[in-house]
Amino acid sequence: MSDQQKTPSADQLKVGIAGLGTVGTGVIKIISQQADILRQRTGRDIVIKGVSARDPKKLRDVDLSAFEWFGDPMRLAREADIDIYVELMGGADGIALASVEGALKRGVDVVTANKALMAAHGTRLAQVAEENNAVLAYEAAIAGGIPIVKALREGLAGNGIDRIYGILNGTCNYILTTMEKTGRPFKDVLADAQDQGYAEADPSFDIGGIDAAHKLSVLAALAFGRAVDFDAVYVEGIERIGAEDIAYASEFGYRIKLIGAAKRTAHGIEQRVHPCLVPLDTPIASVDDVYNAVVVEGDAVGQATFEGRGAGEGPTASAVTADIADIARGLRLPTFSIPAAELAPAQASPMEHHEGAYYLRLNVLDKPGVMAAITIILAEAQVSIASIIQRGRSTEEAVPIVILTHETREAVMMAALDKIRAHEAVMEEPHVIRIETF
Amino acid sequence: MSDQQKTPSADQLKVGIAGLGTVGTGVIKIISQQADILRQRTGRDIVIKGVSARDPKKLRDVDLSAFEWFGDPMRLAREADIDIYVELMGGADGIALASVEGALKRGVDVVTANKALMAAHGTRLAQVAEENNAVLAYEAAIAGGIPIVKALREGLAGNGIDRIYGILNGTCNYILTTMEKTGRPFKDVLADAQDQGYAEADPSFDIGGIDAAHKLSVLAALAFGRAVDFDAVYVEGIERIGAEDIAYASEFGYRIKLIGAAKRTAHGIEQRVHPCLVPLDTPIASVDDVYNAVVVEGDAVGQATFEGRGAGEGPTASAVTADIADIARGLRLPTFSIPAAELAPAQASPMEHHEGAYYLRLNVLDKPGVMAAITIILAEAQVSIASIIQRGRSTEEAVPIVILTHETREAVMMAALDKIRAHEAVMEEPHVIRIETF
Repeated sequence: MSDQQKTPSADQLKVGIAGLGTVGTGVIKIISQQADILRQRTGRDIVIKGVSARDPKKLRDVDLSAFEWFGDPMRLAREADIDIYVELMGGADGIALASVEGALKRGVDVVTANKALMAAHGTRLAQVAEENNAVLAYEAAIAGGIPIVKALREGLAGNGIDRIYGILNGTCNYILTTMEKTGRPFKDVLADAQDQGYAEADPSFDIGGIDAAHKLSVLAALAFGRAVDFDAVYVEGIERIGAEDIAYASEFGYRIKLIGAAKRTAHGIEQRVHPCLVPLDTPIASVDDVYNAVVVEGDAVGQATFEGRGAGEGPTASAVTADIADIARGLRLPTFSIPAAELAPAQASPMEHHEGAYYLRLNVLDKPGVMAAITIILAEAQVSIASIIQRGRSTEEAVPIVILTHETREAVMMAALDKIRAHEAVMEEPHVIRIETF
Repeated sequence: MSDQQKTPSADQLKVGIAGLGTVGTGVIKIISQQADILRQRTGRDIVIKGVSARDPKKLRDVDLSAFEWFGDPMRLAREADIDIYVELMGGADGIALASVEGALKRGVDVVTANKALMAAHGTRLAQVAEENNAVLAYEAAIAGGIPIVKALREGLAGNGIDRIYGILNGTCNYILTTMEKTGRPFKDVLADAQDQGYAEADPSFDIGGIDAAHKLSVLAALAFGRAVDFDAVYVEGIERIGAEDIAYASEFGYRIKLIGAAKRTAHGIEQRVHPCLVPLDTPIASVDDVYNAVVVEGDAVGQATFEGRGAGEGPTASAVTADIADIARGLRLPTFSIPAAELAPAQASPMEHHEGAYYLRLNVLDKPGVMAAITIILAEAQVSIASIIQRGRSTEEAVPIVILTHETREAVMMAALDKIRAHEAVMEEPHVIRIETF
């Protein structure tokens, strides 16, 4: 209980910030521009004492002259006269991990936007934080400015959570939304997104689903009271989504979104990140561009949806500042809502147990008997077909067949797919997208 | 600061509940069924010590035998051995007010779901709470299970809030959604809603917009750091919305929702509750049935949307329990986020300053020159027309004219309306609905 009872001890709250990219400078701006509001709301002066970044000479649109410069973030974390160490450097290991651990170990609270770090080391860091009576806060790591960590930890504290899912990566959502609006192929839209700063130079973490998986694993730990289990997340990116998939989905009444979803099942916790067909009339389907959304299903509250910008200077800095304000106000809760020692061991439900419906797009040789062969494979596997589209006629050329199945088990579907893939008339790797009806 | 620093003093948190309707019994169920989770999350045992309700013999689906029965809620509030007094009786005055004040005055924390009370006496009660080092929590008073009070007070603490708006009354939203789905008139749908328990026997607070106005005035105080100013809310209900309005709105690309909106303007805070045409592609347009949604526009976070069930046993009890859990964890914040003495005086911007576009449905005699007369009135007032629909021909009978204007000032529009209303060919009171583009 002692970690919940430590209270603010002075009228000044001293902050050190490591990492002065977009988010770091955004935090500096909020703390200066909102100084009066923050003083009113927290009863304290939030004062930046020291900053650290790789390049002291880089041009930044904030004045750093009042802050002590630390060439080495480790020294800021471990030695500076600060109450909170704000880690905004990123990366699951290396200096981010070492400096966060260094701060916690001397009882300095940590605020971070680092989802990779939380996904890889969250459970252990929660333990370190507790042992040293320090807070480890990470609202900014998940869904940008949306206060979803606070909602799960506090606002829905009376609920058992059954399922949580959402759109957790703004880059992917921007690319999918733009592909839909323009009909252009994935590669072109990605290149544009990179030019406009919506995608990184190396976009693999985003478009490969890894970033969303980091966030999902942390959300699942918080929602279900379990150790973070990033390795158990099934991950598939959006690289193979074609403009034609988006068009077909629309014909069937769906949009394609990269969804992260975690739920309790009889086999354990199922965690997965992959593209999904979502019905047009669900709240999640109308979340566009760089917006994120998280849907929580609690046994008392029912379904609650939280939507907002998933990244960028303002939203992420807003979340960092909220964590700082909480600490300034004396709110000290365990990292994952319950004491670290009580986090249940991760127990993962493997993807083969997943149950759902599937979208299947095949390029097949347009000759007699092919449709029969494919439908027989599905029938023999007991996968029942909900809809089929076959159009176009072009002897000896490939034509698309698009199939929507009813609900089945992943293992069953994958076995059927092996047979379909092996059929001589099937011209390329089948395009398979899971369907979520929520 | 002392109110933020009081910390839990025992492993047991003793609760008294006054009001055992749907929400009260829901809270009893959660506290019993989620006892383990709540102990894990708060580190304390939440124990119901006493209950009070009008009729001790009424059949309820919870076992009350373990709780001391208080015939008089005042005695529960003022004398019982409790840490938290939970007020779920409702009503702006009378016993609800007296008992809440009684509890606060002896330093007992209060959790309430009573929006009428908070709208009428929130500012003063916040003062009483602070003077007595007690917490006054009211998450359940606004938007059911959605943790919007927490989001504004904590999750968005780094933001200046420019505007907040939403769908704040589930009954109205259910009626409007059902009218749209079925094409049936308001009165029939209301009667059905009453049969199904979605509307009260006396529905005037809900359909007249008063309930939404209560909630809006409290949200505005919290968002803008001002005294609650319920009397300044412009209120209009949904009683005059016709099935034909919903159909015309849809033709123009809008849905009709009862919206509560508050924003900072040059003239002060504008607060209003009335039916609105909202564009189909906004998040708020897709909020159906008994769901509520609140959109917050912060200067750092941008637009954040919170959606969930606005009423009912589970959602409201979830919010009450979250407030209890916060207190159990030692979180003690000022009622409206900042100290009561620092709440700025209410400064209201009267409705005549409102700027927006308008939907206008007139029933006019179908004779030559009527359309010209009406468009001349609008032109002379400098109100420019965006669209007009006139259909049907029936000499000497009334035909509808539907007009969408461009943005103008409320005072200008109302003056033009006076002239239109006075025109001999205008057969009934014009139907005017404001348009929100957000």
